[in-house]
Amino acid sequence: MKLNYLHAHIDRSELLSISRHLKEALSWLRELVEKKEVGFTELPFSSTEHIKALVEKKRRFTDTLVLIGIGGSSLGAECLINAVKGRCSSFFVLDNADPDKFASVISSIDLRRCCFNVVSKSGSTAETIANFMALIEAAKDKMGWEELKKRLVITTDPEKGSLRELCQKESIDSLSVPPNVAGRYSVLSDVGLFPAEYMGVNTDKTLNGAKKAHKDTFKDAPLENPALLIAGIHWLSYLKGKTISVMMPYSERLSLFADWFRQLWAESLGKGGRGQTPVKALGTVDQHSQIQLYNDGPKDKIITLISVEKADVDFKMGDVFEELESFSYLRGHTLKELFDAELSGTMGAFVKYGVPFIHISIERLDEESMGYLFFTYEMATAVSGFLYGINPFDQPAVEEGKRFAYGLLGRPGFEEKRKELEGLISTT
Amino acid sequence: MKLNYLHAHIDRSELLSISRHLKEALSWLRELVEKKEVGFTELPFSSTEHIKALVEKKRRFTDTLVLIGIGGSSLGAECLINAVKGRCSSFFVLDNADPDKFASVISSIDLRRCCFNVVSKSGSTAETIANFMALIEAAKDKMGWEELKKRLVITTDPEKGSLRELCQKESIDSLSVPPNVAGRYSVLSDVGLFPAEYMGVNTDKTLNGAKKAHKDTFKDAPLENPALLIAGIHWLSYLKGKTISVMMPYSERLSLFADWFRQLWAESLGKGGRGQTPVKALGTVDQHSQIQLYNDGPKDKIITLISVEKADVDFKMGDVFEELESFSYLRGHTLKELFDAELSGTMGAFVKYGVPFIHISIERLDEESMGYLFFTYEMATAVSGFLYGINPFDQPAVEEGKRFAYGLLGRPGFEEKRKELEGLISTT
Repeated sequence: MKLNYLHAHIDRSELLSISRHLKEALSWLRELVEKKEVGFTELPFSSTEHIKALVEKKRRFTDTLVLIGIGGSSLGAECLINAVKGRCSSFFVLDNADPDKFASVISSIDLRRCCFNVVSKSGSTAETIANFMALIEAAKDKMGWEELKKRLVITTDPEKGSLRELCQKESIDSLSVPPNVAGRYSVLSDVGLFPAEYMGVNTDKTLNGAKKAHKDTFKDAPLENPALLIAGIHWLSYLKGKTISVMMPYSERLSLFADWFRQLWAESLGKGGRGQTPVKALGTVDQHSQIQLYNDGPKDKIITLISVEKADVDFKMGDVFEELESFSYLRGHTLKELFDAELSGTMGAFVKYGVPFIHISIERLDEESMGYLFFTYEMATAVSGFLYGINPFDQPAVEEGKRFAYGLLGRPGFEEKRKELEGLISTT
Repeated sequence: MKLNYLHAHIDRSELLSISRHLKEALSWLRELVEKKEVGFTELPFSSTEHIKALVEKKRRFTDTLVLIGIGGSSLGAECLINAVKGRCSSFFVLDNADPDKFASVISSIDLRRCCFNVVSKSGSTAETIANFMALIEAAKDKMGWEELKKRLVITTDPEKGSLRELCQKESIDSLSVPPNVAGRYSVLSDVGLFPAEYMGVNTDKTLNGAKKAHKDTFKDAPLENPALLIAGIHWLSYLKGKTISVMMPYSERLSLFADWFRQLWAESLGKGGRGQTPVKALGTVDQHSQIQLYNDGPKDKIITLISVEKADVDFKMGDVFEELESFSYLRGHTLKELFDAELSGTMGAFVKYGVPFIHISIERLDEESMGYLFFTYEMATAVSGFLYGINPFDQPAVEEGKRFAYGLLGRPGFEEKRKELEGLISTT
């Protein structure tokens, strides 16, 4: 992974001026790891044997994976699988509580050929439990609970919560989310690795990439540490009024990396009135949608471009339309050549319009580079929490909406929230 | 469509205080329409007979649609089809120049069963022409140019450009983008309606919805005109420091409406240092990703929630897990009930945290409501351009990046741009 920050509008000397602060952030993080309060940094060193064994067991009679989980329980796996394998016709995610989503998944699968991975750290995420319960109902005519159970893998807290209770009582195959790993930092745990391994991603290679990143991102020298660079540049940009951080991969298969990053950055750093708003974009598609704004709108953004040097496939443009002048410059080129030229053109325009950006280039889009990217961005986010003076591992402000929803659905103990809500959003 | 702005932090009196300005915006727009400089407002009154005839002709020997277009040439059709029909396994879009995207589409289709709709207003959009030329090359072994031609529909300027030249010379079936309709305002023209009609969307009903919106959005009374309300509220919010406009439908099938809106808002209003940054979100998924930031991060956002009253399908949760306390409140409920409760809970939390929002509620997600939504947002955007004091129909800042890319690819006349680019983004 190469990180070029020449055009970030942040120079070496500014970065060096906060190097003491960045090193302190690393010490703070090391201490949290030693006290076992933070666990994501240890994940690259886990064994994957139990995952491979479970995949083998389930693969014997299933060929399709339905992941039932939302947010940190689904985005990492979706991103990893899409990056390595592209779109898979045998992988589905039930995240949203929208019945349209449920209908679309359920009508696309043969229930008896599916492995269902229910993922919830707390063991009680409303959407996840609801989709799980709707699945049981929908499957009723096709198979009983005993048959369904064989196809289940539940990933949850190793000891606590209702899903764990269910696993124990019903002897359901299960995996664990380490209690000291927040959902959005869990892609390199069982949460992300079981679905990935099931779909044919080599999870050992993924962890190897993460191990390399571990080595690089705990280096004390800020200019040689990609996580400190990313954190430092974004922090300094934020102080200069860049309230928006755009993640714009030039790669369809990395499109979901922007979704994964978006949760990581927003939930970790959006606290106490602080935080950059992460924005997902995609090259070259968003040249035809967002570039007008980025170039000539308010200068409130720092942009991250990610590109892949070596394409796995490429296509030549047909040797046709010789007589049409405005097409002829494309003849003899490949799609990848156009794609790369568009990226360079966008960078040139950013420089001219004064739009700050960093450019991350990875050689190949594969398991190793994904492991490296995931771990590096987790480290960058954790370090950023220290710079912002906030806790990057909690998400207290997501609870209030849930409590109101519990009240509306009649969950015992939340009767008062229902009344409170009626007062707040009366529409008259 | 019901629009509730009780919690937008903008009250009636503030809206009324700019009503003269809003009415002026309508007059300005009416004048542009009369002078035929702006054409999108006339689209609801077009005939669809030529579209239906062409669909019938192509449907005789094809059953799959491949739309080759990007930005304003694809987003509207994708959004409309997805909203009305959900995900379709016989509809593909080739937008990006990423060879991975091309590979994924080409490996999923039977070329001989496809209708290819090539859409480019200028007739020379690089990604579109490149994908078209790569398609011709890839199809070579399966069918010659004459066979491919039968499957083509080219949508472009009625008179100008290389694609039009090609249509005329080779007698290819074609449709038109009215010259006075910018790409992002073109969903209700042939651009959006041919793909939609091909995929089974009733385009007459879509235009009927747009006609109703036409009537409502040319009303002079700001409080009775949804477009003036949307424009006025967003403009006043912008003046109060809301630099970000989040579009968060609570509907999977409306997810792409946020992408369509995102282009419309960004390209139309992001100019001269002005413009709100549009952000795409999705309920309930982003409760588990972005809500922490929205609730407790910087108060720089105004949020639009869109929900659908009546679901087309719904699912009961299984009557199971009686003994698990944290699941039992869900028993007896449906997914839609949970979905609605989550939306209300999010609104309640927004009120408590002081996050301004408007809530748009549509009765059913169908052709009529989509026509209404599209037209209303186009009007709101045009009116906003007047409020910002910028031209909402051009996009001058997207050209520079293209020129650099032409230089890199060796297009005659752009040799100097290549040299200029080398000076700008040298990485040493």
